[in-house]
Amino acid sequence: MKQLELLYEGKAKQVYATDDSERIIIRFKDTATAYNNLKKAVIANKGVLNNDISAMLYRHLEAAGIRTHFIEKLNERDQLCRRVSIIPIEVIVRNIVAGTMAQRLGMEEGTRPSNTIIDLCYKRDDLGDPLINDDHAVALGLVTYDELKGIYATTRRINEVLTALFDRVDITLVDFKIEYGRTSDGEIILADELSPDTCRLWDKLTGEKLDKDRFRRDLGKIIEAYGEIDRRLKRLEE
Amino acid sequence: MKQLELLYEGKAKQVYATDDSERIIIRFKDTATAYNNLKKAVIANKGVLNNDISAMLYRHLEAAGIRTHFIEKLNERDQLCRRVSIIPIEVIVRNIVAGTMAQRLGMEEGTRPSNTIIDLCYKRDDLGDPLINDDHAVALGLVTYDELKGIYATTRRINEVLTALFDRVDITLVDFKIEYGRTSDGEIILADELSPDTCRLWDKLTGEKLDKDRFRRDLGKIIEAYGEIDRRLKRLEE
Repeated sequence: MKQLELLYEGKAKQVYATDDSERIIIRFKDTATAYNNLKKAVIANKGVLNNDISAMLYRHLEAAGIRTHFIEKLNERDQLCRRVSIIPIEVIVRNIVAGTMAQRLGMEEGTRPSNTIIDLCYKRDDLGDPLINDDHAVALGLVTYDELKGIYATTRRINEVLTALFDRVDITLVDFKIEYGRTSDGEIILADELSPDTCRLWDKLTGEKLDKDRFRRDLGKIIEAYGEIDRRLKRLEE
Repeated sequence: MKQLELLYEGKAKQVYATDDSERIIIRFKDTATAYNNLKKAVIANKGVLNNDISAMLYRHLEAAGIRTHFIEKLNERDQLCRRVSIIPIEVIVRNIVAGTMAQRLGMEEGTRPSNTIIDLCYKRDDLGDPLINDDHAVALGLVTYDELKGIYATTRRINEVLTALFDRVDITLVDFKIEYGRTSDGEIILADELSPDTCRLWDKLTGEKLDKDRFRRDLGKIIEAYGEIDRRLKRLEE
């Protein structure tokens, strides 16, 4: 597999073309951003850990029968993935109320609602990634109602698999953000990354935050937290 | 029916108890507010027109089989209604994109989407009445998923009836806001008002705005616009 031109540079990743038009290489960078780019930093080795963690989580999801873009981890920073056209919707699953949702709705961080909450946000930096509902997503031409039905079903299944997985390593999956993409034959599959950058992960025993909130909220020991997640998930692979 | 103590004073209405615990009197005031109370004014005679318009629209909805809180118009400013416990959700129906939605999603005002858009907003002035989705409404304990299903079905029916009604008087029903309440026996019925304060109404021929946007956007001739709506609807009653 030959790495060709840079297709896209995001906040924490680069995407390269390859000599196979259906495959891309995703490179994980060490940059971190928060609050719609207001806060930025370089966190040495973050990309290496996120590449490793995301690869492990995607392998677990694939093993559970969920169709994803992941093919294989190539090296410390790169993974080979299927090329998709990303649907510009952030799908956020919340098992416990935290972060922006707590503020928006005046709820206490840490509340565990009786239902699982799924938010859709329209990926538009210039609009601040606003929350949308199903009707907006369809009116914007992003998806059909039928596609949304499939996305919700897959998302719930992903939540079950990941919640159970993190439970085995004494971590509470508080919330996470995923994205979906369309393959060249129109199938909608899970894409993007799954890492402490995109999940809230709390230690079950101590309650300690082991995710990007350490960066957002200046809690320190960021890379140690990411390393802890990586180590615990690795134990399961042995 | 004897009017007793003031139960509640809102931005544009007062609600009074009566000697029947299941009935209230709603008084329409001349005050207008916009942008979450940042803009305020008194518009002489607005309450009289809104009482009349709302009464006509509620009679049409009742005739179409929709269960509402409306009983009868008592005088220029007052109507007698069933007492309900208001569900703190604004249900907004959008046939054409306008106002805050256009700004939030970067859409052109006047766009007619292929689908009808229904927004839910959490009635909380201190939070700025944020947009919510079904999962949030349930997590907040405001409604059950089953109740939401009923609310959506009734809302779509109301949109059909009102769109057809305004069509007969050459007015486009662009969008409108409604609220629902629970009766003492738990039934969910339409409550609050329906008027140019809560609907966007555009003249079909001239495109002229005949609603509260004349106040929000300083377009002048506010009361003339409300009077025009009242006159056209009255023609239908003759």
